[in-house]
Amino acid sequence: MIKYAILGFGTVGRGVAEVMAGQKEKLAAAAGEALELGYILVRRDMPDSPWKDRMVRDFSVIERDPDVAVVAEVIGGVGAAYDYSRRAILAGKSVVSSNKELVATHGLELAALAKEHGVSYLFEGSVGGGIPLLRPLCRCLAANRIDEVYGILNGTTNYILTAMDEKGQDFAQALRKAQELGYAEADPTADVEGIDACRKTAILADLSFGHNLDPADIPTTGITTVAAVDLELARTLGYTVKLLGRAKRTENGCLAFVQPHLVPLSHNLASVNGVMNACAIRGSAVGEVVLCGPGAGSHPTASAVSADIADAVRHRADPVVPDMGAPGGTVAAESALVSPWYVRADAAPEAVEALFSGVKPVYSTTGECGFITGPMDRLAAEKLLAGLDGRALWRVLA
Amino acid sequence: MIKYAILGFGTVGRGVAEVMAGQKEKLAAAAGEALELGYILVRRDMPDSPWKDRMVRDFSVIERDPDVAVVAEVIGGVGAAYDYSRRAILAGKSVVSSNKELVATHGLELAALAKEHGVSYLFEGSVGGGIPLLRPLCRCLAANRIDEVYGILNGTTNYILTAMDEKGQDFAQALRKAQELGYAEADPTADVEGIDACRKTAILADLSFGHNLDPADIPTTGITTVAAVDLELARTLGYTVKLLGRAKRTENGCLAFVQPHLVPLSHNLASVNGVMNACAIRGSAVGEVVLCGPGAGSHPTASAVSADIADAVRHRADPVVPDMGAPGGTVAAESALVSPWYVRADAAPEAVEALFSGVKPVYSTTGECGFITGPMDRLAAEKLLAGLDGRALWRVLA
Repeated sequence: MIKYAILGFGTVGRGVAEVMAGQKEKLAAAAGEALELGYILVRRDMPDSPWKDRMVRDFSVIERDPDVAVVAEVIGGVGAAYDYSRRAILAGKSVVSSNKELVATHGLELAALAKEHGVSYLFEGSVGGGIPLLRPLCRCLAANRIDEVYGILNGTTNYILTAMDEKGQDFAQALRKAQELGYAEADPTADVEGIDACRKTAILADLSFGHNLDPADIPTTGITTVAAVDLELARTLGYTVKLLGRAKRTENGCLAFVQPHLVPLSHNLASVNGVMNACAIRGSAVGEVVLCGPGAGSHPTASAVSADIADAVRHRADPVVPDMGAPGGTVAAESALVSPWYVRADAAPEAVEALFSGVKPVYSTTGECGFITGPMDRLAAEKLLAGLDGRALWRVLA
Repeated sequence: MIKYAILGFGTVGRGVAEVMAGQKEKLAAAAGEALELGYILVRRDMPDSPWKDRMVRDFSVIERDPDVAVVAEVIGGVGAAYDYSRRAILAGKSVVSSNKELVATHGLELAALAKEHGVSYLFEGSVGGGIPLLRPLCRCLAANRIDEVYGILNGTTNYILTAMDEKGQDFAQALRKAQELGYAEADPTADVEGIDACRKTAILADLSFGHNLDPADIPTTGITTVAAVDLELARTLGYTVKLLGRAKRTENGCLAFVQPHLVPLSHNLASVNGVMNACAIRGSAVGEVVLCGPGAGSHPTASAVSADIADAVRHRADPVVPDMGAPGGTVAAESALVSPWYVRADAAPEAVEALFSGVKPVYSTTGECGFITGPMDRLAAEKLLAGLDGRALWRVLA
């Protein structure tokens, strides 16, 4: 019988307690021994909770208990979460986490510390929620040079874009609805500005290309400037709009960015709607695989965290620490990447065709003009666009 | 330095040699030590092969070499493949395999033997080719009661159905083209009759529900009776046609079958085209995840086999043998499953509406009638259909 502790008892923490209790036998089989919830670290007493006898408010109780082999950090943020993760590792305990902010900013350091102290550090739930994603990337695709990872990595923004597409809502309406349904927070900045997707992109890049990136170096554009008319024009052109996090191996190093993209309706990612997430991985042997599922939520994220707990216990003699890449990785210039572009402008067909030969624009019900250019880099696209009254310029996923 | 052997040097065997050589360092990191190709078992000499110095024609050379820790069986079939797999395990070697026929029919026995002899038995490449599928199902989703697995599990039939859909070809034309391109074999029976998908469905069910199924018990219908007009009617109704292998946990035991289905165009599986495969997994905590990618081919399948080789080496002290379920599992009656149905018939709208109240049929350019019923079991659907000149009756994925 091995004890584990849950740090934090919000949406994910509760989910972990419930999922671990619900699948006790299966998880014991996966772990190789029975698992017992030793402690839940909380900030205030919860006298009505069925788990009240496991709750503690002092992390050092957990830290000092030698029977606790694994600590699940689901607090979020980089304050207490970082401090407790470090202390747990120093105390010889494996740490599993769904905290993308912490993993993106301090994952390299915590992974090194875990290696040094002979414990596992796993964070499957930090990217893609319940989607099996990081273990497939690192283990199942171990025979591949990973060339590109890209996907829909944030459920809130995908919910909003889907609502704008399907219901013709504008951004503000769709955001309000998402907030009512609990899919967006009262302060939605981290989601709608792409910050959450940026952290996940950083983690994917760290695991894929051998270099550890600072999320602050990843150019990030959210969806606040996407207008209902863009969804309308995109659909007429045979596309939909998705916020993509992308990371790519290039000759000049690793390229990583987060931006709204036009995605062809025939592409696997185009049918990933609402709060679902999906990630494509391109590998040298496998070609491209796409993994999709619920990217957030209590039980889906707990599914990933609970599997990590079992895996950490199973590998106590042979700890698992994903390779987070060499420190100091730099991000290559996004502007140099060649792709087709979507342009929204106030322009007559003749003006468009004069600038972009052979390109036929479409028009929205409100008379705005939209078209797709041939492949070019960002500077070329911006230069051509300068000749028009351009209102939106986004990459097309090709 | 650990040695591995490749049994069989067809498409997959060559791929394994190439992929293992191409990603030597990454695989060594995953395995925890360097891996060396010790032997390739072939049936005839290949004096021009770059690997000719590793080739042997006598399995006992491999069997007797104590330095060979892992054997990759990529021969196919159940004759020599079964014999060598057994002997390798008895000789204390881990076995990895991409052989769905062998795993579906003798996997339970070989897994038990592997457990008994303290070696790993892994077969990620046997279902879904290069798609990370079985490891995610068994490991990443270990915190879930698996309720359903279903998907497009055969690339040949998906290529044919896609060609029929996109190019309006009939079955015979599309099959010929697939044969020309090497996507279908000269004798396409195992693919087009659904036998290959049936074996993969059996393996998925074995790993998901705790019971081992005999593939011979799984009702299987291939795509030979799918007509071009079905694709046309399906599209008009908002669907496409896919051959699905499905396995489902029910109150009356495990349900498993392989049949052509109408899949809504908005469903993730609808955009999985050509030789791509995809599998959806429904779990108690995660909800539904969908994993897609190349379901066959030399390097994609080798990607899975090579990762298994590394994993088997990594776990030499703690072997991995997936739970293939208890022997003697029975398959519940497919007929009892309630679903909407697609009907093709020679019928006037009034005749359809008299039998299926509220149902509005559509008509093909050749005047054939197609419609979707409400949810009902197979007997009810067949009974209602008896009143019409029915020509096709398939389930709709709801």
